[in-house]
Amino acid sequence: MAVPYTNCFQLPKVSSKCRLLCSSTRLCARFSPIHVSLGTSEPALCLEAKVDPLLDSVKWDDKGLAVAIAQNVDTGAVLMQGFANREALLKTISSRKATFYSRSRSSLWTKGETSMNFINVHDIFLDCDCDSIIYLGKPDGPTCHTGAETCYYTSVDDSLKDPEVDGNRLVLTTLYSLESTISKRKEELSGNSEGKPSWTKRLLLDEKLLCSKIREEADELCRTLEENEDPSRTASEMADVLYHAMVLLARKGVKVEDVLQVLRLRFTQSGIEEKSSRKS
Amino acid sequence: MAVPYTNCFQLPKVSSKCRLLCSSTRLCARFSPIHVSLGTSEPALCLEAKVDPLLDSVKWDDKGLAVAIAQNVDTGAVLMQGFANREALLKTISSRKATFYSRSRSSLWTKGETSMNFINVHDIFLDCDCDSIIYLGKPDGPTCHTGAETCYYTSVDDSLKDPEVDGNRLVLTTLYSLESTISKRKEELSGNSEGKPSWTKRLLLDEKLLCSKIREEADELCRTLEENEDPSRTASEMADVLYHAMVLLARKGVKVEDVLQVLRLRFTQSGIEEKSSRKS
Repeated sequence: MAVPYTNCFQLPKVSSKCRLLCSSTRLCARFSPIHVSLGTSEPALCLEAKVDPLLDSVKWDDKGLAVAIAQNVDTGAVLMQGFANREALLKTISSRKATFYSRSRSSLWTKGETSMNFINVHDIFLDCDCDSIIYLGKPDGPTCHTGAETCYYTSVDDSLKDPEVDGNRLVLTTLYSLESTISKRKEELSGNSEGKPSWTKRLLLDEKLLCSKIREEADELCRTLEENEDPSRTASEMADVLYHAMVLLARKGVKVEDVLQVLRLRFTQSGIEEKSSRKS
Repeated sequence: MAVPYTNCFQLPKVSSKCRLLCSSTRLCARFSPIHVSLGTSEPALCLEAKVDPLLDSVKWDDKGLAVAIAQNVDTGAVLMQGFANREALLKTISSRKATFYSRSRSSLWTKGETSMNFINVHDIFLDCDCDSIIYLGKPDGPTCHTGAETCYYTSVDDSLKDPEVDGNRLVLTTLYSLESTISKRKEELSGNSEGKPSWTKRLLLDEKLLCSKIREEADELCRTLEENEDPSRTASEMADVLYHAMVLLARKGVKVEDVLQVLRLRFTQSGIEEKSSRKS
């Protein structure tokens, strides 16, 4: 949690308290959390020696809990928020499945243990105060018990405009908000009423126009470099490329998340590790 | 917070408790939260009549608090996590600046009131249990008191591998992880040692090669539609387009976030409202 400090712009650093605790034990220099198993005594001992100081460094509240937020590693969507205690965080580290402490049932709870929609954790982050945790992971399916992709689908603004509103608008950041709009235009075209005319619909209906626009926008993006145009032109042309390419994705039934997954498996460390573990 | 229910896939709906409370008052049918002002009595009364049932619907804990997560509307980055009480949520709704309740100081705290790095809230979401809040907004600058973009820059995996690790790796989702990698390659080129050779570096150094690749990849993306290729080919070609275009962005010093902001201002409702409020 960000504290209301005065404005200071030093480089990010783990707080000294965190570091002191984190570095107080160095028993397993070759430890890699990917190879952790709690099933055998040796790795478990190894894990404990390494993890205990880290677990000590978390500022657990008076109930022994810290906030734990599960976020989609590809889209950035906040999937759900729960609480973790020491055991839940330890289990998440060792099992790589997002695990929480259920306050209502007073027990550990691995998301997906009933629904099979696990959240496969790629990395875990602590905040500057060591009292808030992000489980960065890939969900196997919808996270919410309602079947929604995330638990956040009730917009306060919508509810204030119309208290009868159904509360089924997912929290979406810019790229996914645009994707959702394009998807709605596509649905309108396949429905009984085509709705209002729009540029997106024209593109969806006219493959030749769509492809010629994508090639044209890619060319214009390149020309901002070749002709040394202002960076704001580059941003604008890249926005054009993205939008038109996203219409093509919608036309082909491909989600932005699918594309990001391809990128992750190709380029990021967690993706490369995931690929190599599949091969082995 | 997602509850460990059995696997049920009905459509998302506000829980009946939420809806009952949210819809118990309908005094201001033409109310729009964008025009709310607490400075004058009429809008304030109007706001209260509309907001009270909504505030009642939040499941505040035994200390009157709910978890509040601030998320970047463009990038999806989780900026920080704090707690909100009724007043903090009300103030966020009315001021559109992310406001929290500081447990250590027992007072309201608007992020940015000291640093001027406000988080300008575009929308607010409640989760399925009405006990967790997302402030979806655009930060004016770094959110963390350390000067980091977000408060989450300590990777548990890194700390376990090396307890001495400095804790300065921001939590990054796929697109921004790739952007960060490209940016590092660019820095290596401008440093004393060029580091290991890489395709990204070749592209960064050779404008002609980079532009020819972007045009080629855009063409290949189009051909997946024109030649009715498998959607997995489309995802793969789109990944190529994105990666090469991102190298061009890096070359021009343009951030993905800048591009998304352009898209938001053009396409999304909050962007259109923001633009029109600027004009007026």
